[in-house]
Amino acid sequence: MKFGLFMGIWENPNAEHDLHKILHQVVDYIISAEKLGYISAFLTEHHFTGLPQIPSSLTVLSYLAARTTTMRLGTAVTILPWHNPLLLAEEIGTLDLLSNGRFDCGVGRGFRYTECRGFGIPVEELGPRFDEALEILQQAWTAPGRFSHHGKYWNFDDAIIDPRSIQKPHPPVWVSAASDGSIQRTAKLDYNLLLAQFGDAKQIGTRVKCFKDATEACGRAFDPMKVGVTRAFHMTDSEAETREALDHHYHVLANNRKLSSDPNSPGAYFVPNATGNADDTWLIGTRDQIVRRIEALQAEGVEYIMLLDTAGDIASLERFAAEIAPLFDSEMGKVSQKRGAA
Amino acid sequence: MKFGLFMGIWENPNAEHDLHKILHQVVDYIISAEKLGYISAFLTEHHFTGLPQIPSSLTVLSYLAARTTTMRLGTAVTILPWHNPLLLAEEIGTLDLLSNGRFDCGVGRGFRYTECRGFGIPVEELGPRFDEALEILQQAWTAPGRFSHHGKYWNFDDAIIDPRSIQKPHPPVWVSAASDGSIQRTAKLDYNLLLAQFGDAKQIGTRVKCFKDATEACGRAFDPMKVGVTRAFHMTDSEAETREALDHHYHVLANNRKLSSDPNSPGAYFVPNATGNADDTWLIGTRDQIVRRIEALQAEGVEYIMLLDTAGDIASLERFAAEIAPLFDSEMGKVSQKRGAA
Repeated sequence: MKFGLFMGIWENPNAEHDLHKILHQVVDYIISAEKLGYISAFLTEHHFTGLPQIPSSLTVLSYLAARTTTMRLGTAVTILPWHNPLLLAEEIGTLDLLSNGRFDCGVGRGFRYTECRGFGIPVEELGPRFDEALEILQQAWTAPGRFSHHGKYWNFDDAIIDPRSIQKPHPPVWVSAASDGSIQRTAKLDYNLLLAQFGDAKQIGTRVKCFKDATEACGRAFDPMKVGVTRAFHMTDSEAETREALDHHYHVLANNRKLSSDPNSPGAYFVPNATGNADDTWLIGTRDQIVRRIEALQAEGVEYIMLLDTAGDIASLERFAAEIAPLFDSEMGKVSQKRGAA
Repeated sequence: MKFGLFMGIWENPNAEHDLHKILHQVVDYIISAEKLGYISAFLTEHHFTGLPQIPSSLTVLSYLAARTTTMRLGTAVTILPWHNPLLLAEEIGTLDLLSNGRFDCGVGRGFRYTECRGFGIPVEELGPRFDEALEILQQAWTAPGRFSHHGKYWNFDDAIIDPRSIQKPHPPVWVSAASDGSIQRTAKLDYNLLLAQFGDAKQIGTRVKCFKDATEACGRAFDPMKVGVTRAFHMTDSEAETREALDHHYHVLANNRKLSSDPNSPGAYFVPNATGNADDTWLIGTRDQIVRRIEALQAEGVEYIMLLDTAGDIASLERFAAEIAPLFDSEMGKVSQKRGAA
């Protein structure tokens, strides 16, 4: 198994609101994680929360490209409807060159009420805008020379993208999906699959199997590293600490729901929510509880987990690397042993 | 006097077309420049040239924020009509935090034919889009909370920008201007003035005086560091070398003119061109020629020059720092002496 980071620390509504300090803490946290053996950091993109947030994930990843050497640097996800696809293609190429081919390109269609209002884009346009933007990105990545596009949302002539990525034909694309249809589409396009923090081990297993079947139906071998599963994470020493960490996590989730919903029209927007057995869903608990939940995920075919610690606690990350990761990832065990010996 | 960089190296049509290598060369060149005592690097933004270019200047500056510590990091210029002003405000805030307040925000309206076609924006919209985008940026920087905007090109509700810059109320804004009206408007808004590589010492002097008069007419003291003058630069040892460097420079300029013009409608687009006494305009020549031209600029009130070496020659930059800059900038002399002693 492999472990990476899914960075939502900025969504912490309890965090000190000194954004300068927090941003550098986030950066230091990720640099420490690379040293501990975590293989990736995927950054969220959020706007207009009025809270600590990462709105410009590629800008932060570019800084991290200079401060890290091996870890994968990803977005989870870049919301395509908010971006001009040509500017985005150029940024992706630039970041891939600066990071020497370490960029992972997570894309999504967006769903938050506050973001739709803030960008002036009606919720019903998100799907069509996502599809059109992805089509333009694919052209930008594969067109042999200049190309034109005349669609519903974008119109232009004779564009050509430089620099292109050094990963060919483009950086790995990661798509967040949960329904059978979306997962099958992701597999058909040979994209990678992000499974969000919601859904218990059984539900995750069903989705992994759906992706595996759809991949094999296309005549390709299934690679479990093409499925990344995000799990809320915090390591505790007691039930009381677990309760506190869970309370904090539910507070963050409630806040996200508030930002996602239209107060005048409940149900108009998709609102992410825990499903299935919630206790089994989070990696929030003691060492033994977390080990059992990872074993359950592994039994369902999961080989790549991204830890999301909304409290941004580096001690928790260090303990995971030292006490839990080596049970599943022999490479990470070696890193921990080296650190212990040093 | 102070010296910085204006990076147009990517526009070099003769450069090796390995963009991965060139981008890292540009980065290394700028890092070396900081060590030599240059106080800033301003990056151009160009699109769809089909040549080496920097389309995502903020992404590159973010990488540089991690690799430099003191130098100012600027755009020269970010073309506002190509960007969503809210996304740009967020990027600017993020970069200002990552660089610990070193961002200089150059803005322009764009003029190139190939870029108008590539973004699908008619040339006559550039001015109005620039004005509206700058108005939104100002709101993003100064609104006490959420704000809405209903204009001709952008419409949105209840946006709020986080993170904001640590430079308050916003990073210095730099505007490229040449006409009296534009220069006076720049002074009135208390923005900084970028004078492009075209125009001889006398013409530059007229523009500096125009900015100074307009600043003082607003009741503010004139600060010569608020005027940056870009000069094409290459240091040579002989007339033959000078001729070669000039040929290369004219080749770059001819190519830029081609990208700027509509082949079917000459005159429809603004095409930058040398004016006045061309020999006096470039800092391309031997040590003595360059010294005389800088003295002429200094006599016209110029205190801040940005060197633009389209050949990206680090040796030329080192010689300038060692042999010329100390005649005008005692700080830079100290850096050179320290290097000499080491």
